[in-house]
Amino acid sequence: MEIKEYIAQNRERFMEEWGSLLRIPSVSCEQEHKPDMLRCAERWKELLLAAGCQHAEVMPAPTKDGNPFVFAEYQPTCNHQHAVTNTQSPTCNHQPTVLVYAHYDVMPVAPLELWQSDPWEPTIRDGRLYARGADDDKGQAMIQAKAFEYMVRYIWSNPEMAAKYRACHVKFIFEGEEEIGSPSLAAFIEQHKDLLKCDVILVSDTSMIGKQTPSLTVGLRGLAYWQIEVDGPNRDLHSGHFGGAVRNPINALTQMLAQVVDERGKITIPHFYDDVLPIPDEERKMIAQIPFDLEAYKRAIDVDEVFGEEGYSTLERNSCRPSFDICGIWGGYTGEGSKTVLPSKAFAKVSCRLVANQDHEKISREFAEYMQAIAPSGVRVKVTPMHGGQGYLCPIDLPAYKAAERGFEVAFGKRPLAARRGGSIPIIAEFERVLGVKTILMGFGLEQNAIHSPNESMDLEVWEKGIIAVTEFYKELAK
Amino acid sequence: MEIKEYIAQNRERFMEEWGSLLRIPSVSCEQEHKPDMLRCAERWKELLLAAGCQHAEVMPAPTKDGNPFVFAEYQPTCNHQHAVTNTQSPTCNHQPTVLVYAHYDVMPVAPLELWQSDPWEPTIRDGRLYARGADDDKGQAMIQAKAFEYMVRYIWSNPEMAAKYRACHVKFIFEGEEEIGSPSLAAFIEQHKDLLKCDVILVSDTSMIGKQTPSLTVGLRGLAYWQIEVDGPNRDLHSGHFGGAVRNPINALTQMLAQVVDERGKITIPHFYDDVLPIPDEERKMIAQIPFDLEAYKRAIDVDEVFGEEGYSTLERNSCRPSFDICGIWGGYTGEGSKTVLPSKAFAKVSCRLVANQDHEKISREFAEYMQAIAPSGVRVKVTPMHGGQGYLCPIDLPAYKAAERGFEVAFGKRPLAARRGGSIPIIAEFERVLGVKTILMGFGLEQNAIHSPNESMDLEVWEKGIIAVTEFYKELAK
Repeated sequence: MEIKEYIAQNRERFMEEWGSLLRIPSVSCEQEHKPDMLRCAERWKELLLAAGCQHAEVMPAPTKDGNPFVFAEYQPTCNHQHAVTNTQSPTCNHQPTVLVYAHYDVMPVAPLELWQSDPWEPTIRDGRLYARGADDDKGQAMIQAKAFEYMVRYIWSNPEMAAKYRACHVKFIFEGEEEIGSPSLAAFIEQHKDLLKCDVILVSDTSMIGKQTPSLTVGLRGLAYWQIEVDGPNRDLHSGHFGGAVRNPINALTQMLAQVVDERGKITIPHFYDDVLPIPDEERKMIAQIPFDLEAYKRAIDVDEVFGEEGYSTLERNSCRPSFDICGIWGGYTGEGSKTVLPSKAFAKVSCRLVANQDHEKISREFAEYMQAIAPSGVRVKVTPMHGGQGYLCPIDLPAYKAAERGFEVAFGKRPLAARRGGSIPIIAEFERVLGVKTILMGFGLEQNAIHSPNESMDLEVWEKGIIAVTEFYKELAK
Repeated sequence: MEIKEYIAQNRERFMEEWGSLLRIPSVSCEQEHKPDMLRCAERWKELLLAAGCQHAEVMPAPTKDGNPFVFAEYQPTCNHQHAVTNTQSPTCNHQPTVLVYAHYDVMPVAPLELWQSDPWEPTIRDGRLYARGADDDKGQAMIQAKAFEYMVRYIWSNPEMAAKYRACHVKFIFEGEEEIGSPSLAAFIEQHKDLLKCDVILVSDTSMIGKQTPSLTVGLRGLAYWQIEVDGPNRDLHSGHFGGAVRNPINALTQMLAQVVDERGKITIPHFYDDVLPIPDEERKMIAQIPFDLEAYKRAIDVDEVFGEEGYSTLERNSCRPSFDICGIWGGYTGEGSKTVLPSKAFAKVSCRLVANQDHEKISREFAEYMQAIAPSGVRVKVTPMHGGQGYLCPIDLPAYKAAERGFEVAFGKRPLAARRGGSIPIIAEFERVLGVKTILMGFGLEQNAIHSPNESMDLEVWEKGIIAVTEFYKELAK
């Protein structure tokens, strides 16, 4: 049976299964939903078994109070002769192993009054399914589950098809803490390296540029984040008695931070750009082709002008180039009225978005040294690294990337653009570090899906095309 | 009875009365303390009547929601023949009229956790009384009240003494808005010019150089204070999706503020120094004679180095030269942990201390224009003038100044130095403008009293000497 026919025949069941997940309020950052996390993990275990996995289990998190993981596996029959390297999970080198990562936790729904329908009761309006998690990530994870189900039932267990497409060894790992920064994931993959061994990781948790502009995410920015404390006099001083004679810690902090980005938008931290690779010319050409209306962009956020690194476009600046932002600043008197004080301390939270080849730990050290070097006399400066993560870049000549590209082309009728994104998904770099494999980010979100916001939704046409794209990926990968 | 004996006999009552004021949290900048303002004013009315005034009243502020004024008056019997110029408050030209100004409002107590004892419960430790307002200005105002009480009871109503010392006509005007810039005072004195008519104004709201170095304040700095708001995008943005492409309002604010003082400590506001008069050579010589231990000064506030305008000493910088301080700054995420946000807005409260010949309104305009001129693209900047006041200079050959000098000499055993101070009491210049008289600043504070800070205190020995000094001032003035 063709995939389109399979979807048409099973549409009602798909919606029912998807709905059963969406009705579970698995909000990871709210303690009251703790029991829902396990319910949601158990439901996924059932659905992955029903989809064709021979084995599925809910596994405890390695951290105290961590939410459980769902692990499931499909091991196709192997017709080749080869050494079994691992009795528990033998890997056949003729069968590519794909590890599908997703997350079953969701963001809170507040403010509830802005939802047009119950966030926990999936509702279809105008070809969109509305619910918290409709896209992020229950909807996208269902795309993976249903594409896999089709592959097992109609391709890999069909002798006729099996001759054409080698079966894949498929593993699923779904976590319940993505929305709170995946605090258990790194330890889990370190502990279960063999279980998670694979050739490539497949993730559906990102967005396309647009419905008419399918794209694959090939780059993510890294992150370095610090808190800075500037200590001046040992107490708040009267600005009349001391003003002009003692260094003011807020004055000092603004002077230090003002130097970090120059008027050309360049970051002045020494050696900051040493490991930044230039954007390849072909990629810049591709970025220039992305439909982008700068005036609409400015209108949407209500700014008169954009600002960024000289010599780069807005889309290059927010995806392929690093940035420095002061995320928060505080010190002195911030209440009502006017208190004349020369404060004792000043604080800031600052961060850099980094690009693929930059090491967040190296940058973190360079920044801390730089702050000490430019600290003016009369104050003490403390820089505390808060958290960080590496950026990620997927080479577009990787066979698995080519397979994903082919999948999108078949499903959407257009070759997808390879696009870097400005955000960070630190776990992707972590997978590469621990498991030594690349991740293919086959995301089917759209900006209008409003993830994390009220009225999150999924475009049902894109959702079905997503299933087609993933089945084509599997076929192409194991041709 | 000698003043020392009077103090000794009445010490307990003095402390009780003073304590009754300190227990009222009359914080003028906090709306919740509105009822405490009236309570404090009423308490002063009682205390001034008890001290010897024939008349006292709580008068409404001329401004909406302004805190009330306390006015009290002592009119001695006049034995001379002269024209009665004002039936309500006849002024005898043989009786010098002294207007005592003070304020009954105090600064907030935050951060409360740094106080070693309850700021609203006066506590004596090691010869010091600790409480918010212990010095500024409830403690100093009590010095005036108790010196006056002694003069009425033992000098001016004692026929024997009255032969030696003419009685003074004494008026008290206490306001409740000094710590928020005296927004009602100018209108009040304009409206009550006749009521407040006097020969000299006496104010105890300043500090001496040291316990061993008594001094009288002959100069005050002016003040200009602004709130700055920098508006960027219309909402907080995800720093991953927008970082590097959109101007960050906190980055912009730090860049603007960092320019206001250059590395030589010079303020860069255009025309800022146009009206600043050079310090006369003789005054610089006197300043150089003030006992000042720079190492002890640095140790006291725990800084490694001082910083200020090139070419001037610390004592010149904090009294005869203007300054620029960021009093408070805030914006973006300031909570626990690390939120990656490109914030929508950033704020600061900033102020300049000005010197005698600078006009605060002119400086206020220049600064606002300067901020707009250096505002970077992509943000909107709003500068709101908060309050301001002119500086002040008192001639040291004035008879009332000489009387005060004598008072200090008797009380402290040493001729006091004439010193300019760095703080601002904008109303002093205002009194001169409206009432046409000079003010004598007989202040008994000490640096270690930590006014405006946690653990504000008053040295009780100095406090008693202050009472002696003020009684001697009255005697000398009307000899």
